[in-house]
This record gives sequence, structure tokens and C-alpha cells, in this order.
Amino acid sequence: MSDKNRRLMTPDGVRDLLPGTAGRKRQVENRVLETFSLFGYREVATPAIEYSSTFTGEMNGDLEGKLYRFPDERGRTMALRPDFTFPLARLAATHLAGEALPLRLCYGGSVWRYATGQQGRQREIAQAGVELIGSGSIAADAEVVALAVESLLAAGLSEFTVCLGHVGFLQTLLCAHGVTKEAAERVKAYFNRKDFVSLKEYVATLAVSDRSRRCLLGVTALRGGRGVLDEAAALLSAGTERDSLDRLEETWLMLEEFGVSRFITFDLGLVRSLDYYTGMVFEGYTAGLGFPVLGGGRYDRLLGLFGRDLPAVGFGLNLDHLLTVLERRGVFGVTEALVFVSYSAGGRAGAMAEARRLRREGRPVILDVAARTREEALAEARNRGAGEVIHCTAGGRWTGNE
Amino acid sequence: MSDKNRRLMTPDGVRDLLPGTAGRKRQVENRVLETFSLFGYREVATPAIEYSSTFTGEMNGDLEGKLYRFPDERGRTMALRPDFTFPLARLAATHLAGEALPLRLCYGGSVWRYATGQQGRQREIAQAGVELIGSGSIAADAEVVALAVESLLAAGLSEFTVCLGHVGFLQTLLCAHGVTKEAAERVKAYFNRKDFVSLKEYVATLAVSDRSRRCLLGVTALRGGRGVLDEAAALLSAGTERDSLDRLEETWLMLEEFGVSRFITFDLGLVRSLDYYTGMVFEGYTAGLGFPVLGGGRYDRLLGLFGRDLPAVGFGLNLDHLLTVLERRGVFGVTEALVFVSYSAGGRAGAMAEARRLRREGRPVILDVAARTREEALAEARNRGAGEVIHCTAGGRWTGNE
Repeated sequence: MSDKNRRLMTPDGVRDLLPGTAGRKRQVENRVLETFSLFGYREVATPAIEYSSTFTGEMNGDLEGKLYRFPDERGRTMALRPDFTFPLARLAATHLAGEALPLRLCYGGSVWRYATGQQGRQREIAQAGVELIGSGSIAADAEVVALAVESLLAAGLSEFTVCLGHVGFLQTLLCAHGVTKEAAERVKAYFNRKDFVSLKEYVATLAVSDRSRRCLLGVTALRGGRGVLDEAAALLSAGTERDSLDRLEETWLMLEEFGVSRFITFDLGLVRSLDYYTGMVFEGYTAGLGFPVLGGGRYDRLLGLFGRDLPAVGFGLNLDHLLTVLERRGVFGVTEALVFVSYSAGGRAGAMAEARRLRREGRPVILDVAARTREEALAEARNRGAGEVIHCTAGGRWTGNE
Repeated sequence: MSDKNRRLMTPDGVRDLLPGTAGRKRQVENRVLETFSLFGYREVATPAIEYSSTFTGEMNGDLEGKLYRFPDERGRTMALRPDFTFPLARLAATHLAGEALPLRLCYGGSVWRYATGQQGRQREIAQAGVELIGSGSIAADAEVVALAVESLLAAGLSEFTVCLGHVGFLQTLLCAHGVTKEAAERVKAYFNRKDFVSLKEYVATLAVSDRSRRCLLGVTALRGGRGVLDEAAALLSAGTERDSLDRLEETWLMLEEFGVSRFITFDLGLVRSLDYYTGMVFEGYTAGLGFPVLGGGRYDRLLGLFGRDLPAVGFGLNLDHLLTVLERRGVFGVTEALVFVSYSAGGRAGAMAEARRLRREGRPVILDVAARTREEALAEARNRGAGEVIHCTAGGRWTGNE
């Protein structure tokens, strides 16, 4: 393809947001950020370009392979940020090291993830999210889950489910049933992909008792209301520590106090793909969207990579997915009625005065850029979907509604 | 430097926005975009990553050398967008080809410009701007300049000047005085850099009459109110076309009708650095900032590169510069008073109810994540700059003001 034709195209995995959609995206992002602010979270913004070492090394499993990388003028490897959690950990360990704990931080912006071989996968993803850094308490877990629910509600989504799990439960179960570390990783990978067919085949090959096999496969059914925690406890042998279940129980009680428990479903087979989660994990789902609209959890080891050993919990919301769902459901009202102000010879000053008056009232106005007849003005206004037309002449003004 | 230490740093030319600043930046960007919307401009958003060919070739003089480039998986050269005008021209020529003209489009987001050897120069720049595509009228020129003024006012800036010129004037003058094309480019470059010392030295070497020399140097003094246009006309020989001055005169009259002429200063030596401007050009300046806070003008040839030959006019505003100036001038009021809600044993449910009530009223609330004594809560609230403290116990609640 020639450069001339390519100039008219956008690369795979990125897209243009056209009039209407782009404004609605800003509206959703602002509402979500306002909700974060109501919970005391303070916005920060980190650069799109960082040293790649901010994102490489331990606990980066999923991200490292998806980095957009390029060298700077001194040969250092730079990367487009694939995530906000790592940069916010950097901030917590540097500029914000002197602030009172826990830190409550939030963000909204794009991340870039290079995914070859996955046709149609978005590579530029708009995210908003929070990180609560410096508290390992259950109250912190509950606050972050409650805020996830409140953010979706504020954005205009009313029907959704937040699935809540704990990476410790499956870990404990695998350990209690004598599954080797390698086999455990593979089992977790099947849970992560929700590939229960392969899971079943694989578990059949494991050198464990039939009861253990039934227990492991039983986790796939541990989805639902609070009773799931009792079913889960039954899979653990007597004497096995059940700290993860106790924490989830207490988290649930707090989510009831937050008034959001009706949105929560337990899912003890939930294993988030990022390998840095250490406790509670959650994902938000809504009908008609094949991906989670948000995801998060507790990650108590990540900050240590940045030299500041602090527990942390947070979530990120995919604004593109959220926008898509909200547009499909028609939750956006009609925007403020556009006014088309036009003029014929001698009416320009009057038209400009009208436009100024209306804009001062907060109404969007297109002021025509050339003199026209009233009939032409009406046609122009119709082309632009204006709800009202004001046409000024030397002698006065004429108002009409479309 | 080790990767471990680099992980804590940000690269040259980019920066973190800390709590407070990041929120104020969002506030400024939203106010500016709301102003664009009041003038009927519709927001669009284009990807950060494009084929580099969108930005290379003709009329890209300043940008091509500053592209962040990297190959994609098929060896095509990608670039981070260095500007929004080229992508919006692409949109006008593709997705928006069927819409009524003129198109009024706006945007807000980051651009990236790679500048080696310029220590301290920002490489990630937050911009907001508009493009009015499909009208060559003076009314379009005036609308865009008026909108630039209104945007700065809406953002909270009250003292600033918009310098207004026309690239055609200097062009006509150089031509009328028989300056060669090469010499003319060099003269324009000195005007662009406002390097009047070198300009004077260079003009002295030109093979033109003394009167011509005086005329060319006289342009440097053509700054000020409307009278400047008459002084400018006097530099042109009788019979030379004075279309650029006539347009500026008419633009001025419309800016008076827009009620913004008090912010306008003519500057006929203004030559914007981008080589695609074809008519009126302008830059916004405010005291204490060594760069223009905004710049724009008419560019009637750019759209042709994208296969759609349309006149256009627009401007871009540097949100980082604007934010810096606004913060220095202390225009941001005190933010909504933060409330710190804490609890001692037995008071948690009451504290959560308080937090919910306050948040419903739109007040930002930090809900403590652990039980504390009232004294500890007061100290915590003070650390966070909360204006009000509510401490709940099993028996009731205590309210205090910091």
C-alpha cells in the first residue's frame, strides 16, 4: 500500500472516536473520576512514556510480552505504559513517600498493549481506576469493591455483577490436597481461562485421591451468594487454615453496610490473570459484554519491587467497554439542544448578540459563517440536527423549532 | 544505572502530575472543552498511535523531525501523534466525509514530540483545540480567534493578549520588494524566531533598495492596535494587492462584535513555525510564560494532502502551560472540604451510614479503614487536610472542625 493511502487509515487495534461517542466517553470518565473523588481518592497522572524497567522483572507476567518498546537517543529502552498500577506504585515509593498512609490515588487515561496475532483486540485501552496503598485491612478490600460498584452506578450502568474471590482459597486447597507446584500453576491457568473442560481432563491425570479430584473440580461450582462460603469450607479438610474464607465473609458483611451487596456474587474459582494478586480478587460483568468491565484485587507484594513494602488493593475499569455497553443500552439522554443562529445581510451583529446571550446561558450555538436566506438557514440547521433556529435580518429576528 | 534504580525514575521530558495538580488539569481541560461545545464544536478522539505516513511528507516541516517512531509487527513505521491537526484532517477526509460543511471539531489529549538536545523541553504535551473545516470566510477566522479568547477566559485566565497576523502580508511585501524566494525563506525564519538582530544583519546584505530594506525592517514595528493596519498599508507600494490587510481589518470588526477585541494585538511580523499556514495566524501570550499558551491560524492546503481540498482554520492550546500559569496565579479556589469519618469499636456501621449520606450530598469523604480513638482520628484528619471530622462510637457521633 502506498503512503498516500495509508495516510487515510488507522493501524490495527486502535480506533477513532467520532462526534457523539468521544463526548460521551469524556462524560463517563468524568463521572467515574468524580465518584473516586467522593471516596477521598486523589487523581494523579503519569507519563505515557516510561523506562521499560518500570514494567519488567517480577510480577509482570502478563504485561512484559505486550509492551510497546522503543529506544531513546541514549539507547535506553522506553515503553508506552501498559498499566497504571506499576507507575502508581512508583509514585507511592518516590514523590508520595512522605504522605500519610493509606494513600488513596486514582487515575484516568490510556494504556497500550501490543497484542500480535489477536485480530480485533484493542491495543489502546482507556482505563480509570483506584489504588489504596498502605492498608492490609478487610475494610480496605471492602471499600475498593464498594467503590467499583458505585463507579458503575454513577456511569449509568444499573445491571451488573461483581464476582468476588480470593486467590488464597484455591492455593490452600491445592496445597491441602498435595498437588505439586507445577500442577497447581496449570490448574490455576485453566481456572483463569475458565476452561473447565481442559481442567477436568487434566485433574483426571493428577496423582491425587478421588476425593481430592472431586474437591478441585468442585471449585468450579462455587459461585453464588453467601452460602458459597460454607460450601467452600466443606472442601477444606478439618484443620486446614481458612483465612481466605474468613476474610471474604467479613468483606461481605461490610459490603452489606456499604449497601452494595446485591451486586456481589462469590466466585471462588476466580483467578485474575496478573500474577501479582495476593488476596481478594474481583471482576465486574454485565450482560452482552464478553469481557469484564472492571477487575482488581489485593496485591501486597508489588510495592516492594519499588523499594517500599506496603500492602495495596485497587481496581481498573475499562472505559471503552463501559462506553460500548452504555451506548448500546441507550442510557445517554439527548444532549443539550443545539441552536443554529444565522443571518441575512445586515443581521450579523444581531445574530452575534443572540449567540453570545445563548452561550452565556450555557446553550451550545452554531453561529453561521456566511449570510443566508431564512430558507437556506433552515436547511442547514436541519442538516446539523439543531433543535432551534434563530435567523436575524436587518429588521429583526425570526425563531423556529425544528 | 541499574534497572532497579531506573524503575523509580521518569525519562527526560515527561513528568508525573501529583495529587491536586492532576485534578486541576482535568478541571481546566473540561472547562475548555465545554467552551468549545458552546460554540457548536463536537469532540473527536484519535488514537495515540498512527502510521507515520499520516504525519510525513509535505507541510510537516516542524513535525517530521520530532516523531517518536517504531516498527509494527509487519515492519510498517508507526508514530505517536505529534499533533491533532493531521489526524483531524484524516477524519474529515474519511469518516466525516458525508457531514454538512463546515465541520466544527474539537479535541483534548496528549501529543508527543521527540526533541533531543533540548534539555528541559517537554516531550509529552497536553493540548486542546478546535478545527473549523470547510469555510474560507472571514467569519470563520473571527470565530476561531474569539473562541480562543473565550477558552482562556473560561479556564480562569483574565490577563492575556492574542497576537494576530497574516502570513500573506510579509509574503506580499517580500515579493513587492523583489526579494528572492530563498532570501524570503530566511527572512521569514528570522521573523519566526523573533531574531531581529540577525534579521537586520541579513537584510543589510540583500540586493534591494534602501527603501525596501527600511520597509522589511519596518515590519518588526508593526505591533499594536488597529492603526497598525494603516502603517502596514503604507509599506506596500501603490497598486500592490492588500488582501491580507483587508481581511485582518474585517476580522477585527467581527472580533469587536464578538466582544473580545480588547484582547487582540496586531503583529504583522508573526510567522508561525509550521509551514502549512496560508492566511491569518495568531498566538496567545500571558505574562510570566516564555511560550505562547495557544497558537493557530488558517491552513487551506493541508486537507488536500488527505484527498479532500477544503479550507480550514483552527488553534491548539497548550494545557500544561495554561495550568502552570493558572496555578501560579492562584486562580483555583479551595476544593470541596474533605470530611474524615472514623469510628471506634462498635461505631463502624454508623460511620458507614454517615459516609454514604455525605457522599450523596456530593461531599468527598475519607472513611477510615481501621477502628481508632477520637484523638487518633483527629490527628489522622489533620494529616490529610480534612476540614471536618466525624467520629462514630457505639453510643453516637462526635463532629469537629479542623
